[in-house]
Amino acid sequence: MLEGGSVGESVALDGASTTESGGWSHRHILSLDHFSVQDFDTVLQTATSFQEVLSRRTKKVPALQGQLVTHLFFEPSTRTRSSFELAAKRLSADVLNFSPGTSSLTKGETILDTAKTYLAMGTNIMVIRHKQTGVPQAIAAEMDRLNTGVCVLNAGDGQHAHPSQALLDLYTLCSVVDRDRPRTDNLRGKKIAIVGDVLHSRVARSNLWSLVASGAEVHLAGPPTLVPQDFGGFLGNNRPIPIHWTLDDALVDADFVMTLRLQKERMGQFLLPSLREYHRQFGITRDRLKLCQPSVKILHPGPTNRGVELDSDIMDDPDLSLVSCQVTSGIAVRMALLYLVGSGKGLGT
Amino acid sequence: MLEGGSVGESVALDGASTTESGGWSHRHILSLDHFSVQDFDTVLQTATSFQEVLSRRTKKVPALQGQLVTHLFFEPSTRTRSSFELAAKRLSADVLNFSPGTSSLTKGETILDTAKTYLAMGTNIMVIRHKQTGVPQAIAAEMDRLNTGVCVLNAGDGQHAHPSQALLDLYTLCSVVDRDRPRTDNLRGKKIAIVGDVLHSRVARSNLWSLVASGAEVHLAGPPTLVPQDFGGFLGNNRPIPIHWTLDDALVDADFVMTLRLQKERMGQFLLPSLREYHRQFGITRDRLKLCQPSVKILHPGPTNRGVELDSDIMDDPDLSLVSCQVTSGIAVRMALLYLVGSGKGLGT
Amino acid sequence: MLEGGSVGESVALDGASTTESGGWSHRHILSLDHFSVQDFDTVLQTATSFQEVLSRRTKKVPALQGQLVTHLFFEPSTRTRSSFELAAKRLSADVLNFSPGTSSLTKGETILDTAKTYLAMGTNIMVIRHKQTGVPQAIAAEMDRLNTGVCVLNAGDGQHAHPSQALLDLYTLCSVVDRDRPRTDNLRGKKIAIVGDVLHSRVARSNLWSLVASGAEVHLAGPPTLVPQDFGGFLGNNRPIPIHWTLDDALVDADFVMTLRLQKERMGQFLLPSLREYHRQFGITRDRLKLCQPSVKILHPGPTNRGVELDSDIMDDPDLSLVSCQVTSGIAVRMALLYLVGSGKGLGT
Repeated sequence: MLEGGSVGESVALDGASTTESGGWSHRHILSLDHFSVQDFDTVLQTATSFQEVLSRRTKKVPALQGQLVTHLFFEPSTRTRSSFELAAKRLSADVLNFSPGTSSLTKGETILDTAKTYLAMGTNIMVIRHKQTGVPQAIAAEMDRLNTGVCVLNAGDGQHAHPSQALLDLYTLCSVVDRDRPRTDNLRGKKIAIVGDVLHSRVARSNLWSLVASGAEVHLAGPPTLVPQDFGGFLGNNRPIPIHWTLDDALVDADFVMTLRLQKERMGQFLLPSLREYHRQFGITRDRLKLCQPSVKILHPGPTNRGVELDSDIMDDPDLSLVSCQVTSGIAVRMALLYLVGSGKGLGT
Repeated sequence: MLEGGSVGESVALDGASTTESGGWSHRHILSLDHFSVQDFDTVLQTATSFQEVLSRRTKKVPALQGQLVTHLFFEPSTRTRSSFELAAKRLSADVLNFSPGTSSLTKGETILDTAKTYLAMGTNIMVIRHKQTGVPQAIAAEMDRLNTGVCVLNAGDGQHAHPSQALLDLYTLCSVVDRDRPRTDNLRGKKIAIVGDVLHSRVARSNLWSLVASGAEVHLAGPPTLVPQDFGGFLGNNRPIPIHWTLDDALVDADFVMTLRLQKERMGQFLLPSLREYHRQFGITRDRLKLCQPSVKILHPGPTNRGVELDSDIMDDPDLSLVSCQVTSGIAVRMALLYLVGSGKGLGT
Repeated sequence: MLEGGSVGESVALDGASTTESGGWSHRHILSLDHFSVQDFDTVLQTATSFQEVLSRRTKKVPALQGQLVTHLFFEPSTRTRSSFELAAKRLSADVLNFSPGTSSLTKGETILDTAKTYLAMGTNIMVIRHKQTGVPQAIAAEMDRLNTGVCVLNAGDGQHAHPSQALLDLYTLCSVVDRDRPRTDNLRGKKIAIVGDVLHSRVARSNLWSLVASGAEVHLAGPPTLVPQDFGGFLGNNRPIPIHWTLDDALVDADFVMTLRLQKERMGQFLLPSLREYHRQFGITRDRLKLCQPSVKILHPGPTNRGVELDSDIMDDPDLSLVSCQVTSGIAVRMALLYLVGSGKGLGT
């Protein structure tokens, strides 16, 4: 542990010094709206360092030793919570998990008071998920107002943002183009189709910011009820995002297809006729992928409804599916995020 | 870790030697009935050492390395479980969490058998919460009967006792008077009003023992249904505890006001007319605090019903509220309790 | 930690070299059907080494440092999950717990996809419990098909197998005969009565393999609905297992009595008249034990229904009951299993 630790620290510090020159300035990571291209590249670069750490026998570095990372997951989650937890442990942080089932929430305590309780216990970084938009932002604002120095990472809020997912997607995409040197520039001019329930997807919203900033050519596809005409306007820049209500238009010459999870409750809301109808119109099949670039790769944030968003055999084909790579990247990217905010560099905002 | 560890140990041992001269003699901490003033001061002194440890970069000491602390929380809890868990980890103990939701309880196993299962796994310290009075006592008695050497800490049983909460309250109160040297003597002659549902509160019961032993002048206030006439008699000493059925009498010249959580289910039991009515009669407001000493401070064990037990702006005013200090003190005090029973000093019974 | 660690490693490596000469060849431990007598003895021998580690002050060895053990418990469990978790931590592994309550299972993800998610996070060993027979096997097959090198330990699947329980039972039994040198040979010719709901018991099924392989003389007893006439045939060897529909025949001269947990839902399935009737016919009482060898010992996998499978005072009599020994052995045996598959020895299949 000592040997791995000290070597680990030097690598981590390498990452940090690169970072410092890159000028990391975010105390919190709440959404990707205000990320500069430099910010995205700093995350990619730092994650690359940690990916190397994860390939060693001892996968731990002492970067956040003595720091307390608290996971406040007001909404249940398998992969995101496990991924953040493992990332925090591999940075040698202490970890507390707040799980709403066995909590004071039912006792009428406000969310801010729950957060302040964990602040008072000595929390340095809060990783927060909530089904309601804006909760991580509200907690971050309160932490700043109180001058606590606490960093907040948004692990998914309502239909608003899921920045760590978008950043691990970015890392995955850029690594496909250049495994050793993932950087935003790798995506310049690449056509990326985002397919499915864009309207309700925090994953899609966060990905739009990072992909557009990277210079990718993003297309949206889905039924009109899930990809409204005016959706692309939300980016507020001069490049309108093309919207397609048929899948084929979006797939033509695509380099990457990013499928989104279809919530089954959309049916009850009269937004979808049936899963079978959805799959017939927007499900990814081998046949349809012939419209794409020969090297096309498929992403999905998981958990997947096999046979709905994409055919089962595509998901299992390592030449096509990046689903496992996304999960693997998640550890290194979340280590990078915890490290960037937690190692005392993110004091600007 | 090594450096922090060894330095930490020396500090912890300092604490211990002070303790040894103080003659710590409790194997279990089940209630505060039999605590001597010396016992209270030993806890305060040991917690002060650990508060210093917590201010370092590396917050860990190897005091309980190789020991297994098991949390048996038959009743859900946010802050107490997290606080004990963090305290145990910072003493380098191994930690197991037993959570009733995913347990054998539904399979008909007795509570004693659950405890014996964790004993057989090598548990050295059990931290126990149960909604029924007497469960930690019953488990402790069984552990003693079997000569196991296991130590039991009561983390709240029914309406009976919550010793770690009362001890962290004591630490918080004494620290207000003398930050560097919290000791029971600091409270001599201080007027402390305990306000609210005293009848059902294990926090109030445990606090009465420590505050009266410290020489504080304790007053109880609340509606007659929640603070019965004969309540003060339970201490069984010659100093009757003054009881007030109007708030103002209790607040006059008070140095500290300890508010208690109001369980909403008291309404359904016809013990309270309404939350609004309760707040009108016993809620702490800025206006009412003018009756107290100018330096008055407010405590609440949490979770708080803002606008019921106390006005929201009072809770957020760091010049008035000690709520966050209580949570912070909780880590150091629980480290002290785990250390005192776990480091082999508490062999008398 | 360092000192304990390095000494620990040497002991562990001792265990390993013995193991290597013993030729450990199982990547997974899914059931005990294919275990050779040598395999059983390797487990016993390795567990003996770890039992010695657990008697030290520092109970940790760095054997699995840097490895990730994920517990996928689709079915709730107290003792088995805690036991595996503690075993993994004491081997210095990183640990992730997947709990179905807060999971993606409700979101429609397949079990294999859940497993692959944790694979992609870097899991080296999966410990799996599921109420359906065959789930650990299916996951292990998929892990092999993908050439992942991941090891799977079955922590209980349906009514099929519970190998770690049978192995800790074996260790407990052999230790009674020779505390310092538990080996299968110790059981040769010993009469062991397995009493109760054999039909639905994965514990009984797994124990049959290990006990018969050890040369013990196994007898089954229970009502015909729970121990069918043709049950013994399932072993498929030439020695039929004697079946008794009255308890006394099974107990005569028994060296060990292994009681099984009675699921209360069997009553609703018309397999049992009542708990009282069951206890009258098959409950273990002091009186009935007079039929056994004077040195007879009782086992139960837990959790126990006191007064149903066995009288309460028998369970509490350390001269008769091995229940606590079983739980204690569980830690050392599970450390052995994690070590044997995880330390890179189990590459044959």
